[in-house]
Amino acid sequence: MGALMAEPDGQPLLAEQLDTLVTVLDLARSGTARTRPEIIRHSGLGRTVVTQRVAHLIDAGLLEEGTLGPSNGGRAPRQLHFRANAGHLLVAELGATSISVGIADLAGQLVAQQEEPWTIASGAEATLMRSVERMFDTMLDTRNPNDPQIWGIGVGVPGPVEFATGRPVAPPIMPGWDGYQVRDRLAERYDVPVWVDNEVNLMALGEFRGGLARGERDLVYLKIGTGIGAGLISAGQLHRGNKGCAGDVGHVAILDDASVICRCGNIGCLEAFAGGAALARDGLAAATDGRSPYLARLLLTKGHSIEARDVAKAATHGDLASVELLTRSGRLVGEMLATLVNFFNPSLVLVGGGGVAGAGDLLLATIKQTVYRRSLPLATRDLRIARSPLDDRAGLMGAAFMVIDELMSRERLTAWIGHKSPIGRSDVVHPVPVQ
Amino acid sequence: MGALMAEPDGQPLLAEQLDTLVTVLDLARSGTARTRPEIIRHSGLGRTVVTQRVAHLIDAGLLEEGTLGPSNGGRAPRQLHFRANAGHLLVAELGATSISVGIADLAGQLVAQQEEPWTIASGAEATLMRSVERMFDTMLDTRNPNDPQIWGIGVGVPGPVEFATGRPVAPPIMPGWDGYQVRDRLAERYDVPVWVDNEVNLMALGEFRGGLARGERDLVYLKIGTGIGAGLISAGQLHRGNKGCAGDVGHVAILDDASVICRCGNIGCLEAFAGGAALARDGLAAATDGRSPYLARLLLTKGHSIEARDVAKAATHGDLASVELLTRSGRLVGEMLATLVNFFNPSLVLVGGGGVAGAGDLLLATIKQTVYRRSLPLATRDLRIARSPLDDRAGLMGAAFMVIDELMSRERLTAWIGHKSPIGRSDVVHPVPVQ
Repeated sequence: MGALMAEPDGQPLLAEQLDTLVTVLDLARSGTARTRPEIIRHSGLGRTVVTQRVAHLIDAGLLEEGTLGPSNGGRAPRQLHFRANAGHLLVAELGATSISVGIADLAGQLVAQQEEPWTIASGAEATLMRSVERMFDTMLDTRNPNDPQIWGIGVGVPGPVEFATGRPVAPPIMPGWDGYQVRDRLAERYDVPVWVDNEVNLMALGEFRGGLARGERDLVYLKIGTGIGAGLISAGQLHRGNKGCAGDVGHVAILDDASVICRCGNIGCLEAFAGGAALARDGLAAATDGRSPYLARLLLTKGHSIEARDVAKAATHGDLASVELLTRSGRLVGEMLATLVNFFNPSLVLVGGGGVAGAGDLLLATIKQTVYRRSLPLATRDLRIARSPLDDRAGLMGAAFMVIDELMSRERLTAWIGHKSPIGRSDVVHPVPVQ
Repeated sequence: MGALMAEPDGQPLLAEQLDTLVTVLDLARSGTARTRPEIIRHSGLGRTVVTQRVAHLIDAGLLEEGTLGPSNGGRAPRQLHFRANAGHLLVAELGATSISVGIADLAGQLVAQQEEPWTIASGAEATLMRSVERMFDTMLDTRNPNDPQIWGIGVGVPGPVEFATGRPVAPPIMPGWDGYQVRDRLAERYDVPVWVDNEVNLMALGEFRGGLARGERDLVYLKIGTGIGAGLISAGQLHRGNKGCAGDVGHVAILDDASVICRCGNIGCLEAFAGGAALARDGLAAATDGRSPYLARLLLTKGHSIEARDVAKAATHGDLASVELLTRSGRLVGEMLATLVNFFNPSLVLVGGGGVAGAGDLLLATIKQTVYRRSLPLATRDLRIARSPLDDRAGLMGAAFMVIDELMSRERLTAWIGHKSPIGRSDVVHPVPVQ
């Protein structure tokens, strides 16, 4: 990686040369430009500068030359490819009741993925030691010696995160996690830079960078899992808010009904009436009080409790009680979403999460219907509401994109000057030279 | 302005030289760096590059040298000042019932300001010809021949705007304005580039760049005028939304009360119950049905109808009916704002507009109380809610900042290459060379 640090004459790259390095790298890795002439055309940079920066990036192992590209009449220029396998990333998505980990390449694609049930409320120490790190270690053990090095780690958690420090902040459903140094702990253990964010933010980022939302500027990602949360993209950038809790729509008070206490401890929260846990709870009640013969049979057969996906399945089989539960959930979510659409005026709303898995079109149709009825006409003009196409990959891919963008940022490249390798501990965490 | 276009040897500036030119200009005009050594330190650029770019900007009349700055032991470096008087801007803020125009310098400060009553519903032609352009012309007539040239125009309107084209889009309270070419018309008439945005967006921008919100990253500006609207700043950038209607909170349905029809034609809108027009309407009712002796006396004395500010004044004099009206307005606005705070997680909410003028602390106190009671604890941790300090200057100053940022942008500077002057018609509007 030495070639990134110095011009051929051994002088360190100047700040303005780094700017152009980042420009060239961004054009190449986004696929916007695939040859040197295309980079020149898109960047407005001179031929000499582009040639030099491309040479740097090839020496650094981030770009490689391929076959001959399209010609404009003269000699055909060589194709340039971003080496997505120059490094790999460890990624994890921590949900309320399950944990997914994976390995991603530098293009955000998952090369390995694994999911296990886990209760996030077990606390930070237990969750990291007995689940996340164990799953990471198992995944690393199966790798070949000549697999790409791990360059960084990205983690999503189901609560607000102070992004600059990588610590959860007063997360309502994560007892024992408040202020826990997730970033420091993982950086220490794996000796690579680590970034942490809210999982729904990362799902939004995953779709925005690698899924259906590519090219959209204003996006809402609505996750209906055990609970309910939203991730917001404003003009192409994640909107995290002052305390990292923007999009915390699950705990907005929608009803004055004190009969149901939310897992956050309050009453009247949206997710206590419309989330996956609420569907499971109300489905169980319908199974036992005779309203749903389908769920009653299932309860006997399965021998354990009812889950949200059971209610969804029952509804697709025409079970009326389940249809009612899903419709009510869709209406409550839709009313909240209608207000959010008025405030935020997104072009696309993506709905994902385990709570909608298997729910067919009923839940989404009810949500859509409610939004189009309740939102302002101008706010719904050209508004698309669709199911998240990446679904259970969105969060892990978003975690990868978060790490990639940080690693390839101007700030990061600047920090590399004088170091031997782009990998190593984050300078935010450990301001010591890397090995 | 020729010096901006060419290096001393007559070659045009390259794209990467323009990047550094913008960097140097931004540091100087924001006041972040006040000498060449400070620019070098903040930018990371080399001494030669900074010296060259500063020379360009001095030749172009955008920077000037001042007295000797602080020394680090050696020879004291010269101070550099951004020449805020290199050019002037025409700015206008179109409200529902009044129009303000002004002249601003390149630092966003108003050097002249004037306000007149006007009904925006008179339509685009009449409003521009008989109010805005007439007021602009009067203001221009009073200028001296050696006053700075007008470099651009910024306009705020009380409705959604497609920013790229400068046209209102289906504005609910602006009949006759839908799709009207506000930008083209003014650019044609005054032969300078024009930008148009929603007035509340511009109020948010004014406070963010020139007022109490400087340095905040996530801001909500809530305007309570005749109607109610919000401007959102996300991570330091205006959040306009897909159709330019983000923050359109006045027409969110809050009640199922069909007795009041909003001026947008719908029922149940927030502003139909809590805006300035609603206060005036309900104040008049209280004056005539005997609930408010204070307003009844005022109605007799004034000989015309009751305005929102009369209700506010009556409340500060202890008139119970008026106190009730203001409290109800504050509570309804506060409930909407509580949801917005949960969604958006701002660090600062500023409240401004004619509807709160003279309302003392009662309205604001009720709004605060409601938000702190209804929002999530984490979202209100470190949240400040305050009155807009710039108040009736916020919109005009925001219009100026919008134009300045566009004029000093990389795109704009690129477009200047080969032209003789930074002023002249916007290339978006008229792709012809400027004089």
